[in-house]
Amino acid sequence: MPLVSKHLLGLEGMPKNDIQTILDTATSFREVLERPIKKVPTLQGKTIVNLFFESSTRTRISFELAERRLSADVVNFSADASSVKKGETLKDTARNIEAMKIDMVVMRHAAPGSALFLSKVIDAVVINAGDGAHEHPTQALLDMYTIREKFGRLEGLKICIVGDISHSRVALSNIYGLKTMGAEVAVCGPSTLIPRNIEKLGVTVHHKIEDAMRWANILNVLRIQLERQDRVFLPSLQEYRKYFAVTKERLMRVRNDITIMHPGPINRDVELSADVADGEHSLILQQVLNGVAVRMAVLYLLGTRS
Amino acid sequence: MPLVSKHLLGLEGMPKNDIQTILDTATSFREVLERPIKKVPTLQGKTIVNLFFESSTRTRISFELAERRLSADVVNFSADASSVKKGETLKDTARNIEAMKIDMVVMRHAAPGSALFLSKVIDAVVINAGDGAHEHPTQALLDMYTIREKFGRLEGLKICIVGDISHSRVALSNIYGLKTMGAEVAVCGPSTLIPRNIEKLGVTVHHKIEDAMRWANILNVLRIQLERQDRVFLPSLQEYRKYFAVTKERLMRVRNDITIMHPGPINRDVELSADVADGEHSLILQQVLNGVAVRMAVLYLLGTRS
Amino acid sequence: MPLVSKHLLGLEGMPKNDIQTILDTATSFREVLERPIKKVPTLQGKTIVNLFFESSTRTRISFELAERRLSADVVNFSADASSVKKGETLKDTARNIEAMKIDMVVMRHAAPGSALFLSKVIDAVVINAGDGAHEHPTQALLDMYTIREKFGRLEGLKICIVGDISHSRVALSNIYGLKTMGAEVAVCGPSTLIPRNIEKLGVTVHHKIEDAMRWANILNVLRIQLERQDRVFLPSLQEYRKYFAVTKERLMRVRNDITIMHPGPINRDVELSADVADGEHSLILQQVLNGVAVRMAVLYLLGTRS
Repeated sequence: MPLVSKHLLGLEGMPKNDIQTILDTATSFREVLERPIKKVPTLQGKTIVNLFFESSTRTRISFELAERRLSADVVNFSADASSVKKGETLKDTARNIEAMKIDMVVMRHAAPGSALFLSKVIDAVVINAGDGAHEHPTQALLDMYTIREKFGRLEGLKICIVGDISHSRVALSNIYGLKTMGAEVAVCGPSTLIPRNIEKLGVTVHHKIEDAMRWANILNVLRIQLERQDRVFLPSLQEYRKYFAVTKERLMRVRNDITIMHPGPINRDVELSADVADGEHSLILQQVLNGVAVRMAVLYLLGTRS
Repeated sequence: MPLVSKHLLGLEGMPKNDIQTILDTATSFREVLERPIKKVPTLQGKTIVNLFFESSTRTRISFELAERRLSADVVNFSADASSVKKGETLKDTARNIEAMKIDMVVMRHAAPGSALFLSKVIDAVVINAGDGAHEHPTQALLDMYTIREKFGRLEGLKICIVGDISHSRVALSNIYGLKTMGAEVAVCGPSTLIPRNIEKLGVTVHHKIEDAMRWANILNVLRIQLERQDRVFLPSLQEYRKYFAVTKERLMRVRNDITIMHPGPINRDVELSADVADGEHSLILQQVLNGVAVRMAVLYLLGTRS
Repeated sequence: MPLVSKHLLGLEGMPKNDIQTILDTATSFREVLERPIKKVPTLQGKTIVNLFFESSTRTRISFELAERRLSADVVNFSADASSVKKGETLKDTARNIEAMKIDMVVMRHAAPGSALFLSKVIDAVVINAGDGAHEHPTQALLDMYTIREKFGRLEGLKICIVGDISHSRVALSNIYGLKTMGAEVAVCGPSTLIPRNIEKLGVTVHHKIEDAMRWANILNVLRIQLERQDRVFLPSLQEYRKYFAVTKERLMRVRNDITIMHPGPINRDVELSADVADGEHSLILQQVLNGVAVRMAVLYLLGTRS
């Protein structure tokens, strides 16, 4: 069934059927990744530009692998080498790149709403690879895929997202997607890092990590952005760790079999202890693998839609 | 008909037949770009190195798209990541890269004459993607293609190049190419930014933009290099805009149906007002699209010449 | 005959048969490089990640060309654009990249032993493209290939490595490989730049370049790392040149027909005079060409081993 969505800008408002189709399609690509030859000719002759205005390793590599394994032609563009330096607007950059007859653009940009903006000024398919603190839809889709792979379903499961919810595009996309798919969602973190009125999104708030652990089937632990420490939201790293770090010791005390996820890269022994990250209940490496399959599904579905 | 030229170093002295052949061949590739699958197997198994010693977005992407759509193997090399840092000479870099059996090198370099130099020390085909303030031949070829596409011919047309002529490789390549093809060429800008004796190239000089507008069929408006403002040639940006900016208002006063071109990236509302850049007489996005077709033609003709 | 080695981490302890097989296989790929179409489908559908934590031009391009000519899918990753910035450990980076189902990783890293470490934490094939001052095995293999190509053998030949032996991964890999293949190896340089006890590796030490010239069939002249001049090992560049530079004049005085090699990039007229580098006894450009063939051989043999 083709997607209703023409672009993947975010999971807010994306129809349940579209999410379902993406996750189901990802299952086929997940099988492709187990073959010796992981390549299919689906997007042969299509051109995809990866437009990364913020540096990124794993998301960029994950998309690039997905693109190459679909046999697309890939052109990379990173902010440092760009005419952005020369003061060109996003609109001009986008329209110029589109004028070269690009089929799809995968964009990461620091401005919330930039992917939506892009989709309005160009005809090519736009895939949001992260727009500021707004959305990161492929991350949430791969998280949902990974949960469904383990639990066989999303409906009725209890997922708690832990950390700096206010500045997290991963959190927001997960909330939208998981709610649409019928999961129960909570968030947990210092009150300074939880948006006011987040309950309006149908989300429960925990202020104690132990409460979150008791409640949830799954903890999706966010990366603490150490590079944002100049911000005053966080009293201190020591304090964050004391109250919110997900550690073996803490899990032993409360509940040891909880499933652990993390979008990476991990600050080992800051938000998540190394033994938990590498432990038997961690799905972190499966997330990475599934990320390629989910991105292949998104690229395939949107790239062959019209 | 094969090209006489072995390399594309500049349009100075390039035979009219070669220019004609490139423009005619670009027409075929222009059609390829309208197909769902924009790829042809012409350069399969050929290796092209993009050697960019100056940063560039659109020229690099345009070349890379052209190369990939001809099915060549592409290796990118940018100055920052290079052994240039280690103090290696251009000659050593070039000879070493060539020793790896490269078929073609596309080079951008700050030194005028660097492309010619390169063509003398290596056997591979050299395509100049801009050598300092000297030449930028593929830009001029795509400009000529775009003019010919609209007007059906180049001969007898009046093109005025506006801006900093002294430091512009785009201006120089356009002057050589357009004169060879029988067009009339003028330049317009502050006298500090117009080379002495430019009339010897068969070019008329206008010091008033209104005069240029009255005279020309086409204005090719150059980018004012804001990043070069430390140079003392330009009294001030305000003054430049006051006397030379191409604006709707000014065009309305003089002549409103003039064709507008710009090599990009535009400083909107500096050398060109946004409404004119996006207006019905602007060919700017066509230039970008045609750039890919023209570069495919150049790569194809030079890459299959021997 | 398949290789015993699963990875290429270094030449220390690599079986003679494996080295022989690589050099013999490189001969076939050397022929491929002389064809108009230099591409073979051997690694089609395999994914190779080039993980360069230190900047490099020629080694990276040489590997990338080798990979593309084997039809592999290539993803480049350089330290600047990486989550290394975000403080992620090599282990996490590697495991995450591997989770995306990479077949092979080519890594350059400043830490000695990093390639070995990587091979222990991931399943993919690891090829060491330089780990600190430890090993650079493909450089030594291409040096040996180039010697064998000229002399028809390695056994019994006398090779002297000249320069900063203490900080050279090229020197160490050459010593291991050449000794295994039955060559005689000496080193020559200021005593501050020669490791104590290097004789234990079966290596002769010359402190006078004239002695080295008299003894050797081949001088493999290392690059003096000008960028490391803050180190106090080197009295001064002037002094180094005075006593150790390989110049035409010096060769004329001692022996003029000695074969000259250099891993590049050359500091012309520092460790090696320009006339010698470009002279008839120089194999420097052959080394570069053979580098692609040797890397194709290594990638092919390790990539199709299992």
